[in-house]
Amino acid sequence: MRIAGIRRNGGPVEVASLSPDGTEVTVVAPLERFWEDAPGFLSREPGGESVPAADVTFVPPVLPGARVICIGLNYLKHAAEGSFAGQDLPPHPTLFARWTRSLTVDGAPVPVPPDEDGLDWEGEVVAYVGATLVDATPDEALAAVAGYSVFNDITSRRAQKLTSQWILGKNGDNSGPLGPLVPAAEVGDLRDGLRVRTRVNGEVVQDGSTDEMVYTVGDTLSLISRTFTLRPGDLLATGTPAGVGYARTPPWLLQPGDVVEVEVDRLGTLRNPIVGNDARLRRA
Amino acid sequence: MRIAGIRRNGGPVEVASLSPDGTEVTVVAPLERFWEDAPGFLSREPGGESVPAADVTFVPPVLPGARVICIGLNYLKHAAEGSFAGQDLPPHPTLFARWTRSLTVDGAPVPVPPDEDGLDWEGEVVAYVGATLVDATPDEALAAVAGYSVFNDITSRRAQKLTSQWILGKNGDNSGPLGPLVPAAEVGDLRDGLRVRTRVNGEVVQDGSTDEMVYTVGDTLSLISRTFTLRPGDLLATGTPAGVGYARTPPWLLQPGDVVEVEVDRLGTLRNPIVGNDARLRRA
Repeated sequence: MRIAGIRRNGGPVEVASLSPDGTEVTVVAPLERFWEDAPGFLSREPGGESVPAADVTFVPPVLPGARVICIGLNYLKHAAEGSFAGQDLPPHPTLFARWTRSLTVDGAPVPVPPDEDGLDWEGEVVAYVGATLVDATPDEALAAVAGYSVFNDITSRRAQKLTSQWILGKNGDNSGPLGPLVPAAEVGDLRDGLRVRTRVNGEVVQDGSTDEMVYTVGDTLSLISRTFTLRPGDLLATGTPAGVGYARTPPWLLQPGDVVEVEVDRLGTLRNPIVGNDARLRRA
Repeated sequence: MRIAGIRRNGGPVEVASLSPDGTEVTVVAPLERFWEDAPGFLSREPGGESVPAADVTFVPPVLPGARVICIGLNYLKHAAEGSFAGQDLPPHPTLFARWTRSLTVDGAPVPVPPDEDGLDWEGEVVAYVGATLVDATPDEALAAVAGYSVFNDITSRRAQKLTSQWILGKNGDNSGPLGPLVPAAEVGDLRDGLRVRTRVNGEVVQDGSTDEMVYTVGDTLSLISRTFTLRPGDLLATGTPAGVGYARTPPWLLQPGDVVEVEVDRLGTLRNPIVGNDARLRRA
């Protein structure tokens, strides 16, 4: 089962199941209703209307108020490249924030902001929280994961490195393409090792496996839940493997006209074109 | 004019104007509608129904998907206390993120998470973006500010300092009490110097003025708008003056039973009790 957000005729966001060939969607529930019982909806066949995919607009199946919590430096080889090379591995997961307004979908154009020399790729896996978690154990937290998606944490490196805090460079317009949600039961355990590959114009630039993660989804959600209460629909982006662009010699950043793809076993492929800053001005 | 968010009988969030004595509210518009034209609604008398304040639930007048962008180290004397003492002032505003789920209102209890020795206060001023801003100049950005509120950026210091990134400790449950929105036209320019005072159990612990800010609202929003497009309803928390608790000798942190107040000229006073972690477990 692959779950997407859709809008029909500019209406409210609904959650829908994609047909295997992607040409049709079957409505599951309105967005808020879905997140009130995501495990329930994901465990049975969708009961709503089926419509051609060409007739709907795809959006992330994400509540506007959801928290997109991201782990930095969560793959050993990535932590050893770039600005943090030579430093000890942080003794806790390094967490930074995206707001949901930075999220977008497969195919959406991603603009390069005016002060950047280009954009950097970060292929990764996102986990969706499916239950309320307060002071949860790692096992309780992992059991509460409703599903996973492929994600590209596209980064404005100059903005990210402007000060000690990264969030400006992690929230560019359309900078967080997110694939369909695949139920946790179909994905299994990330520690089994899902291959994560990123390609730029067809060339492989990242090739890692989720079994390289330093901090697991359960451990990280457990830690978070001891400071703030996690709610159904919150997201955890689990970090990127080695091979990002800015850490290369010479650096390699995405330019308008490039196409960036992220492919993760069992989760599918995201494909997004890079465009110029004029797209931001036109959209405003 | 003081603008609050309200719910009537568990219904959707509406924006309402508070009567001068606070005993009555007059509905302005549904939340989404308000932010479609905040400057317009703020320039005329509210046209909706008036109801006793006792009959409604107050909530922040904030869109769930709004970005709460916070400036750290924005008052010289605060930058010189605590962990960053002795370091050069950052050459750009240090921006970190809150999600709207951390926001609450005057009077709401704020729980101390289980791994914290207490909570720290940070009295400050929040600016609300009232228009779309893409690559805006500082003057354009300042002109787009719809209003201001008093804010307490209550911080879980242990979680904040766990790694290089602060956001875990900045998003505790109910950790962001926010006062009513006061229209920008009634507030004037923060550079004129609004006094910001924080009190703990009646004792003054912070006493600063907004004319001490290093980075202005216009400059900061302009910078942000060159990476991501600001939307109506986004918030900018402008940083706190000197006097936070963790930087004291000995440290002084808020404990269950304490009451913390923030008072800002022209914006009013916020008053919140601190409670134990059991409140989180009960609420879940």
